[in-house]
Amino acid sequence: MKANSKGLLLVVSGPSGAGKGTVCAEFLKRNPDTFLSISATTRKPREGEKDGENYYFISEQQFKDKIAADGFIEWACFCGNYYGTPRDKVEEMLESGRDVILEIEVQGAMKVRSEYPEAVFLFVVPPSMQELKNRLVGRGTEQEDVIAKRLETAVWELSNTFKYNYIILNDNLEDAVSRFSAIVTAEKARVARNREFIQSFS
Amino acid sequence: MKANSKGLLLVVSGPSGAGKGTVCAEFLKRNPDTFLSISATTRKPREGEKDGENYYFISEQQFKDKIAADGFIEWACFCGNYYGTPRDKVEEMLESGRDVILEIEVQGAMKVRSEYPEAVFLFVVPPSMQELKNRLVGRGTEQEDVIAKRLETAVWELSNTFKYNYIILNDNLEDAVSRFSAIVTAEKARVARNREFIQSFS
Repeated sequence: MKANSKGLLLVVSGPSGAGKGTVCAEFLKRNPDTFLSISATTRKPREGEKDGENYYFISEQQFKDKIAADGFIEWACFCGNYYGTPRDKVEEMLESGRDVILEIEVQGAMKVRSEYPEAVFLFVVPPSMQELKNRLVGRGTEQEDVIAKRLETAVWELSNTFKYNYIILNDNLEDAVSRFSAIVTAEKARVARNREFIQSFS
Repeated sequence: MKANSKGLLLVVSGPSGAGKGTVCAEFLKRNPDTFLSISATTRKPREGEKDGENYYFISEQQFKDKIAADGFIEWACFCGNYYGTPRDKVEEMLESGRDVILEIEVQGAMKVRSEYPEAVFLFVVPPSMQELKNRLVGRGTEQEDVIAKRLETAVWELSNTFKYNYIILNDNLEDAVSRFSAIVTAEKARVARNREFIQSFS
């Protein structure tokens, strides 16, 4: 439908262990025209991380200047490091008609909503609490207290699901990606997103 | 997602020539679990029409008794004949978890909305006004003034599109049915339709 000139802004969140990174990566592989926004951060790159691929690594001064220039759609400070979603690239992509994915946490997502009410908010969820526990334990690399802490955080994160529009149940990757695709197709068919096209009939 | 115990109520409208009957028929063929509601009418069966298949053919007295017993979700009188959507079967199907399609015109759809706000309203549209005209002319069996009248009605019907949730662009049958399916999948993933499931995490 050519009438949708602007792309969709897709905000994806989900608790640790739900697999949102994997679901987004697979969706992007099948929809190479969709743009995944890359966050900026002031934390130092870890081994193997590349600037402009995992993050844009910038200095605290650069970050603060960008805040002052309204250059972030949302930003936050965790553990002494700043993280944010640069505005320019996202808006450029949306304007050119490309869909954009922001893979961000709950507080960031809510800031996006206040500024982009037409964005679509998706929350990736595991099939059950037990399955989430299995996945967190299954990594096998963590101590029991670390797992308990993660699970507690996941429960808090899940309590925010009602702030989103859709859940993407990640029981298996194939079905989860199909659901993601169906939501994108359906949102593009919303009457509210097709005003110009509908008006062409009158 | 087992958490959705009730089926979806899908209300489908669209102007004459948009092809909503064909789109619904093809969707039903691929989703045999979906139930197509059959209307009741007081008009006489035309040649080849079967009771319980095209319509439930009932008497005016039976129709009026059913109105009095709140037995219709919506009903209307056109050209001296009554038409209505029987309530019992639709509610039985929804309760058992099956999705239900009501293929009805705009006024009927709006009555359904006031009583079933959780229903999904879909409007089948042609790709353009020119294409709609071609399709109406293309049937080749009608006089010019009949076509002009149909086109006028179609324009009025199209002016109601904004009362619906989604448009199903029917540029070709395959894509139209895919859009229909995507909308059904997406609606089932709506947070508002998954309250029980989401609450199972807390």
